[in-house]
Amino acid sequence: MVTLDFELDFKKGKGLIPAIAQDCNTGEVLMLAYMNQASFNETLASGKATYFSRSRQSLWKKGETSGHVQQVKEIRVDCDHDTILLKVEQVGGAACHKGYKSCFFTRIENNELKIVEKRVFDPDTVYK
Amino acid sequence: MVTLDFELDFKKGKGLIPAIAQDCNTGEVLMLAYMNQASFNETLASGKATYFSRSRQSLWKKGETSGHVQQVKEIRVDCDHDTILLKVEQVGGAACHKGYKSCFFTRIENNELKIVEKRVFDPDTVYK
Repeated sequence: MVTLDFELDFKKGKGLIPAIAQDCNTGEVLMLAYMNQASFNETLASGKATYFSRSRQSLWKKGETSGHVQQVKEIRVDCDHDTILLKVEQVGGAACHKGYKSCFFTRIENNELKIVEKRVFDPDTVYK
Repeated sequence: MVTLDFELDFKKGKGLIPAIAQDCNTGEVLMLAYMNQASFNETLASGKATYFSRSRQSLWKKGETSGHVQQVKEIRVDCDHDTILLKVEQVGGAACHKGYKSCFFTRIENNELKIVEKRVFDPDTVYK
């Protein structure tokens, strides 16, 4: 158990804070997920991004199924202590369960969503 | 009023979605704030980042007081349609009300928070 000299504000989000994962090499924003205190502690202890799945209501060790873990190189905390930014090395080159490097693979163009990234893997092959 | 060919999932966050602002030139993550449908519409219509302030419970035209508006150059939507990423030009060079370019100006080092960025402006001068 790691003792910290600061506190994160989990109250504002009813036990959860948003965590942004950013590629530590390219600066690309990969995804946003949520953490509770336990997943934050686990992230610190393991050095691998661990989130809290709102749909499953349980700890979510990112990459446990796909092998696409995120090695955490740096953790930034924002001015209000209610959001964190993880600078990560994305193993496998893709963060998104739909097979793209970044979950933000669509852009608004002329009021429509347009895919502007290339698929890195086929989800049907990875998630069996 | 802009009509979109897709829907954002505001339900999951009880009317709010997180919006990440990223410097469109450097890739630096500047801040995270929240949007409701009205602030998202206003952002689309004005081309300037408009959030929803959870503390004030009202529309928050970013930069209205400080002049540090965010010109939105691109909007990305994530795979679940419940988070957006704004690529912005940050007028005045600073997004954070504490005078730093990014709100993520502290890093966890040896279980402490360490300031790792330089102040761009003095908040006492800007917010009178």
